[in-house]
Amino acid sequence: MTLASSTHGSVDGDDVHIAYIGGGSRQWAPALFQDLALSGIDGEVRLYDTTSESAERNVRFGNWVDDQENATADWSYGATETVEAALDGADFVVLSTQYDPAETFVHDLDIPQEYGIHGAVAATTGPGGLFRAMRTIPVYREFAAAIREHCPDAWVFNYTNPVHFITRALYDEYPDINAIGLCHEVLGTRERLARYATDHLGMDASREDISVNVKGINHFTWVDEARCRGVDLWPLIDDLAGREEARRTFTTEDLVDESVFTDNWQVTWELYRRFGVLPATGDRHLVEYANWFIQGGEATLNRWGVKRTGSDYRAKHWTPAESDQTTDVEAWMSGEREFTLEPSNETFMDVLGALLGEETYVTNVNLPNEGQIEDLPSDAVVETNAVIRRNEVRPIAAGGFPRPVRSLIRGHIDTQETVVEASRTGDLDAAFEGFLIDPQVRSLPPDDSRELFADLVGAQERYLEDWDLDGSTVLAESAAYPTE
Amino acid sequence: MTLASSTHGSVDGDDVHIAYIGGGSRQWAPALFQDLALSGIDGEVRLYDTTSESAERNVRFGNWVDDQENATADWSYGATETVEAALDGADFVVLSTQYDPAETFVHDLDIPQEYGIHGAVAATTGPGGLFRAMRTIPVYREFAAAIREHCPDAWVFNYTNPVHFITRALYDEYPDINAIGLCHEVLGTRERLARYATDHLGMDASREDISVNVKGINHFTWVDEARCRGVDLWPLIDDLAGREEARRTFTTEDLVDESVFTDNWQVTWELYRRFGVLPATGDRHLVEYANWFIQGGEATLNRWGVKRTGSDYRAKHWTPAESDQTTDVEAWMSGEREFTLEPSNETFMDVLGALLGEETYVTNVNLPNEGQIEDLPSDAVVETNAVIRRNEVRPIAAGGFPRPVRSLIRGHIDTQETVVEASRTGDLDAAFEGFLIDPQVRSLPPDDSRELFADLVGAQERYLEDWDLDGSTVLAESAAYPTE
Amino acid sequence: MTLASSTHGSVDGDDVHIAYIGGGSRQWAPALFQDLALSGIDGEVRLYDTTSESAERNVRFGNWVDDQENATADWSYGATETVEAALDGADFVVLSTQYDPAETFVHDLDIPQEYGIHGAVAATTGPGGLFRAMRTIPVYREFAAAIREHCPDAWVFNYTNPVHFITRALYDEYPDINAIGLCHEVLGTRERLARYATDHLGMDASREDISVNVKGINHFTWVDEARCRGVDLWPLIDDLAGREEARRTFTTEDLVDESVFTDNWQVTWELYRRFGVLPATGDRHLVEYANWFIQGGEATLNRWGVKRTGSDYRAKHWTPAESDQTTDVEAWMSGEREFTLEPSNETFMDVLGALLGEETYVTNVNLPNEGQIEDLPSDAVVETNAVIRRNEVRPIAAGGFPRPVRSLIRGHIDTQETVVEASRTGDLDAAFEGFLIDPQVRSLPPDDSRELFADLVGAQERYLEDWDLDGSTVLAESAAYPTE
Amino acid sequence: MTLASSTHGSVDGDDVHIAYIGGGSRQWAPALFQDLALSGIDGEVRLYDTTSESAERNVRFGNWVDDQENATADWSYGATETVEAALDGADFVVLSTQYDPAETFVHDLDIPQEYGIHGAVAATTGPGGLFRAMRTIPVYREFAAAIREHCPDAWVFNYTNPVHFITRALYDEYPDINAIGLCHEVLGTRERLARYATDHLGMDASREDISVNVKGINHFTWVDEARCRGVDLWPLIDDLAGREEARRTFTTEDLVDESVFTDNWQVTWELYRRFGVLPATGDRHLVEYANWFIQGGEATLNRWGVKRTGSDYRAKHWTPAESDQTTDVEAWMSGEREFTLEPSNETFMDVLGALLGEETYVTNVNLPNEGQIEDLPSDAVVETNAVIRRNEVRPIAAGGFPRPVRSLIRGHIDTQETVVEASRTGDLDAAFEGFLIDPQVRSLPPDDSRELFADLVGAQERYLEDWDLDGSTVLAESAAYPTE
Repeated sequence: MTLASSTHGSVDGDDVHIAYIGGGSRQWAPALFQDLALSGIDGEVRLYDTTSESAERNVRFGNWVDDQENATADWSYGATETVEAALDGADFVVLSTQYDPAETFVHDLDIPQEYGIHGAVAATTGPGGLFRAMRTIPVYREFAAAIREHCPDAWVFNYTNPVHFITRALYDEYPDINAIGLCHEVLGTRERLARYATDHLGMDASREDISVNVKGINHFTWVDEARCRGVDLWPLIDDLAGREEARRTFTTEDLVDESVFTDNWQVTWELYRRFGVLPATGDRHLVEYANWFIQGGEATLNRWGVKRTGSDYRAKHWTPAESDQTTDVEAWMSGEREFTLEPSNETFMDVLGALLGEETYVTNVNLPNEGQIEDLPSDAVVETNAVIRRNEVRPIAAGGFPRPVRSLIRGHIDTQETVVEASRTGDLDAAFEGFLIDPQVRSLPPDDSRELFADLVGAQERYLEDWDLDGSTVLAESAAYPTE
Repeated sequence: MTLASSTHGSVDGDDVHIAYIGGGSRQWAPALFQDLALSGIDGEVRLYDTTSESAERNVRFGNWVDDQENATADWSYGATETVEAALDGADFVVLSTQYDPAETFVHDLDIPQEYGIHGAVAATTGPGGLFRAMRTIPVYREFAAAIREHCPDAWVFNYTNPVHFITRALYDEYPDINAIGLCHEVLGTRERLARYATDHLGMDASREDISVNVKGINHFTWVDEARCRGVDLWPLIDDLAGREEARRTFTTEDLVDESVFTDNWQVTWELYRRFGVLPATGDRHLVEYANWFIQGGEATLNRWGVKRTGSDYRAKHWTPAESDQTTDVEAWMSGEREFTLEPSNETFMDVLGALLGEETYVTNVNLPNEGQIEDLPSDAVVETNAVIRRNEVRPIAAGGFPRPVRSLIRGHIDTQETVVEASRTGDLDAAFEGFLIDPQVRSLPPDDSRELFADLVGAQERYLEDWDLDGSTVLAESAAYPTE
Repeated sequence: MTLASSTHGSVDGDDVHIAYIGGGSRQWAPALFQDLALSGIDGEVRLYDTTSESAERNVRFGNWVDDQENATADWSYGATETVEAALDGADFVVLSTQYDPAETFVHDLDIPQEYGIHGAVAATTGPGGLFRAMRTIPVYREFAAAIREHCPDAWVFNYTNPVHFITRALYDEYPDINAIGLCHEVLGTRERLARYATDHLGMDASREDISVNVKGINHFTWVDEARCRGVDLWPLIDDLAGREEARRTFTTEDLVDESVFTDNWQVTWELYRRFGVLPATGDRHLVEYANWFIQGGEATLNRWGVKRTGSDYRAKHWTPAESDQTTDVEAWMSGEREFTLEPSNETFMDVLGALLGEETYVTNVNLPNEGQIEDLPSDAVVETNAVIRRNEVRPIAAGGFPRPVRSLIRGHIDTQETVVEASRTGDLDAAFEGFLIDPQVRSLPPDDSRELFADLVGAQERYLEDWDLDGSTVLAESAAYPTE
Repeated sequence: MTLASSTHGSVDGDDVHIAYIGGGSRQWAPALFQDLALSGIDGEVRLYDTTSESAERNVRFGNWVDDQENATADWSYGATETVEAALDGADFVVLSTQYDPAETFVHDLDIPQEYGIHGAVAATTGPGGLFRAMRTIPVYREFAAAIREHCPDAWVFNYTNPVHFITRALYDEYPDINAIGLCHEVLGTRERLARYATDHLGMDASREDISVNVKGINHFTWVDEARCRGVDLWPLIDDLAGREEARRTFTTEDLVDESVFTDNWQVTWELYRRFGVLPATGDRHLVEYANWFIQGGEATLNRWGVKRTGSDYRAKHWTPAESDQTTDVEAWMSGEREFTLEPSNETFMDVLGALLGEETYVTNVNLPNEGQIEDLPSDAVVETNAVIRRNEVRPIAAGGFPRPVRSLIRGHIDTQETVVEASRTGDLDAAFEGFLIDPQVRSLPPDDSRELFADLVGAQERYLEDWDLDGSTVLAESAAYPTE
């Protein structure tokens, strides 16, 4: 976790080079550019995206923002035609790309549903999540190889889901990479705890006041210590878990007008009551790992206050941040919509600042396990807090788990490790072994699990070309494959 | 694993004391008595059973067998009124008791079925198996305590299911106990491999010719090396796995006249094809651990050639060996049925003989893990081969597993450890945590898993009196409990 | 590592209670009082010491400092007659006591020397260090028990040597204690690295500019990453290690006028050249762990630039900080010597401030291993960086070691664990097993090691009354014991 | 540990091919040939040795023995000119070669002595033993590569010291090799225990009656269970350890007429008294690992009843079995000395027979750790019992150690692993790191350890040509190297 070159160490905030792979993102990129404009750091952002129009639109917006009156920093934006051109000499790399959701996510959600698996979001585990991993890992292996070549010491921020699989693959390909996987979920939990402290302890708290000891894997993290400005929140959490509002049940009707992003926390509370530690991710992700809550289909999901993210929604509204807020930069630039340059709620600038020597920053990140979680395998990518200082990121030792929770997490790690290892040679049958031990798949009969796998391969074949489809026994056994 | 007293060490086969707890068994005890009568060892067997008539009938039979003309050994049999009287000064202890199946197994099978869990046999894992463990562990803790008191150095043979839970509990209660858990399943696998060697390699082989490297937990063991008189069987196994007869499908119709004990090995072959290691237990047990094969209910089970053991069958035909062969000792003694004194196919005498200094014997046993399986938790009871010599049993190091298989086993071990730990204080909510992470239960929605648990408690309350039902949060939350 | 009571969490710096056990210290206490006076925190310090005059002198000084014109905070000082009175309700506890050095250290140094072991300082390992641990652990077990009783949530700062043994014993006695072991050595290494960065890279650096990844056990810590304001220092370190000034040899003559505290760093450089990681403690401590440098006696020590701390020096000049600077508070109070109220270079206030909610602070601390160092035993007390925030201390995951270095450290941890475990029951023979595997003792023949042990027991008997001397086989075998 | 080819599995004792590398051995080969002649197995032995006369003499002897009247088997003997010719198609391989002792062992003993290290035998650890490992490993890597090529499934018996280093290197080079390291020391311990049982318990016992639970590394093995025909010997061992004859001291005078092979067991008893487990190797080897007993030089050694094996002795009397009995085959063949064909006391035939399907055999062997010893690193070569059956060798799980003993063993394993890893690339400086952490070397000052290392390199340069001497920093720093 070292940036070895002393040259790099001298980056002092006047001339920072950022490569943004997937730079055509519609929401997160514009937010980042505003944050940069309001910072005390100057530099250059090079954007690369497979759809170059998007990247170019964002380039125009970036430069436009830089010209805003109250911008305090000086940044220039440009689009590159190759990944390599974006990466060359970069100090920081942002990774955030996805395939066309209409051709991928839609299948991730719809095909498993045909087999009775009603994942809430199907984004990072379960059959859909695993195929997303299988599609994405080969691309990110190429990114890792290009980073080794073009900017070996750069700090790499991976925002791409499934974050744990992808970050693991980056390290598998280039073990000395300085990559961290970043995700909003734990931040959301801290915000929620701040509201509790405000509402129940009268503390007028915000996210920054909340510190947690967090550990797990991405989207399946747990908290076993929480404080608000030093005050132990556990008695409050314990009290809340027993209240009526933590035991609400919902009907499908109740949720009809709700956003899929609304979180009713009922899954969280139930898991806390059962296991004594508090999940630190939104219920919609949680249910896919703690898969009891999707057994019985949407009825169960809804009863626990979770609304399924439909594939039609996915096809239309996808943004890398997986949020429902969209951003229309054209409308801003044309003056059609009023624009106010203001900071986002993102932590990217805090991390960037800390790496450049500003204030030491503690936040949750995804990194290979080197002891930060006891009794989980080394090298698997896990999520804990880390301390971020100038040119340095170090995970914080978070201890272990109660045995049953560790058991759940370990199972998911076994899938992670099996799929990433299979991806080294594109061994599809080996990936299927990881697929089989996923708890969602364990609820299917053997024939169904094989056909589901083959269906997913069939629907997404063009995104799986690095996998050995021809040599696969599983596909050969399948009635459903090839699909035509 | 030491018999410390030199007195004991001097047992030389002339005056062996065996305590048989559960001595009224209808099939296994009569077989044992015949084996003893045909051995070169003399001694005394003391039988204790809760239903004393059964024990007394077996006592009569034992003494009757001893008088048979071709009996080569001299044994006397007596029934005791207390466990302690049977154990006092014993050299060997056989543990093999169960509660009345009509009041227990029937529920283990029927109640989960109401929730959609169609376990094939429900005997050693899944909701039914876990309740069997929960009922049985407290009783066996008492046995372990009595053994410590009355025959601390005795060799204890546990035949009671779930063997891994019960053997684990014996060690948890009395860590210096010389106990081994014994089971027939791996022996059956060796018999099957002998048939293959005979049929396909023309080797005229029997079980004794087959050696395997076996490892796992009871009823979920795997083989990764197999030889017939030194000849590697792996090429044959690999060949067979690809043949048509290893890919048969069955209809419910096909099985209508089959015994529930018929094994068609289709589950075994499918798992071999997927994971590259060969299961070493009957399909009917296997499907409960590799639970894909019971998802979809009896239709799935039948498709894979497994017939469900109905609860009515259980109620009527239960014997400790879980076999359908019954033995009518009264008919033999009255002359109504012809009797031929002949040895059984059991390995008990081989183990007993080896412990008394006869030939070194290698067979599969269940023992606390002290390294015999790599990368599984210490102290959990696992099954591997052991070498048995005079007064000594030592597990054989069997190596590790492919990751996906290890993942499946580890999950079951987590349940084992969680339930046994919970049993120390009778913490029912802690046991429920172990119940929740069982893969069969993971296919249920949260409300169902809780109600299923409460239903099972309700139906078997009188057998769960060592558990803290009153203090249980899970029961308090349940709509179904108390049942009336 | 939680302060559970929300009451405690509300400590906001206006009313902080500090218990100072060993409060009569001559140097460190006066420095602390000045730091407190110059802080923004108010409160009360209660001092307890076995020699009450010393504590009372420090009380007078504390109150006198509080009255100084430029004092910014408000503190009151009082001495207590019992440990319990000092601890009662404390928010923070400072532990820093020792037995009379004339009766203890003198023997720690002199007696091993008679056997050819010329430890440089004999303070924290080797025969003398182990006896210091054996004398001190029982007293600190009592402190831990009193803390559990009187201030269970207090933050406990242990400055007492051997820091790793003592901190381990505190946790062994009261596992929920919030204790950290603190030591100056790593800070000194950072100061040294700052000088290098200043001298060779022209960076004008001070300790605060240097960040290191540090790991090991107290007085045997190692650095494998170092940066000065983000700039990687490894190329510089590697360069310096090859220079002539890193290969100096010394004669006894050369050192005659040197202070024992002068550090020539030659041991450090030699170890770096051999193993590729940089020791992070002074050479005089290092040589006792990397004991090659004391083999051959003082001649070897001196050749490497280390001067032995003579026992006469110890007897006269001992202060808890083991420094040669002494402080004459009487002279200050009487006006005999001019007094300027000024901050020390200690980090105590930074840690205290961070725990009270001021700036997040990262520094090296000694804590039970929960993964912060890979592949070392859990629970052993190790030293790494930790992040300190309001009411929270968390070790930072520091990774592992090259195998040979890990081997050296693990050996010392085995001694730590063996001696602390032996101290539970006062089993002297078990402690002797830990003594035997110490590498200094491994250079003695068996008879010598036993006689040395017995001699040390004989000389310090009155400080070892919690150990079972009467039942010891080792003492019984000894020709030298009892000594009269 | 599989012989994969079914062809091989069919070896049935009628046509066994044995390759004997080092086939000119003067004692062990003749003994083997007699054992073969008296067996029920027929076949061919191909001998390869660097000194072809020796091999040819043994060939003549082998064929001569085969013609003896009472020979029951039919064997033919031939010498080959290359290793490959001997190995080609072999079923079994015996490895037992050494360099000319006059040019190697002599230095192993004499040069360390100049530095104050008076190893008793210097054969398998300490400076001399490590150089023996460094000389021998590259040669055995070549053997392993040739075995992979010419007889990949053969069973390989390594008798070459240091057995643990060499066996480890064989597996490091060819991980699928079927190699076991064999050694007589534990057998000797069982013989000794048989004598105790005979003398003190009147049991008329021989080695075969004794079973032990043995574990450790070669020449540093320990027993924690021992039985004679099932009778626990621990009470006897404990009694004997306290007796006067277990507390004898010797003068140099006392030993003057003793053979260096006489074992007085005083080291063994002292270690038992200290640590509670019983060493299972001769004192002369033991003292090199438990190096307290060589500190203080020959005087200490002698005081404990051990006589140093002088280098002059080594130069003259070396045989692979390191025994003082020599065998004059020429005298036998010429009739000058009377010859009686009789079986040796070796276990080779028992192992061979078991592998060919005769009786299951349990004996101590050296194998990579796969769990047979808990809490020691995987893959390091350790010694425990194994069960040997037709075409199969499996280590027996032996449990763990008391912490202090484990600490001693682990240190030696760290050296083993460091040196073997260094040998992959011939990194001499890395090997020096392993050398430094050897406990004998830890008693030297740093300059001495470096000069000793350089001296040993200088004296044995021609045997170290696979090591990178030119690139070595250690040699470059040495005043002593190059020597001329």
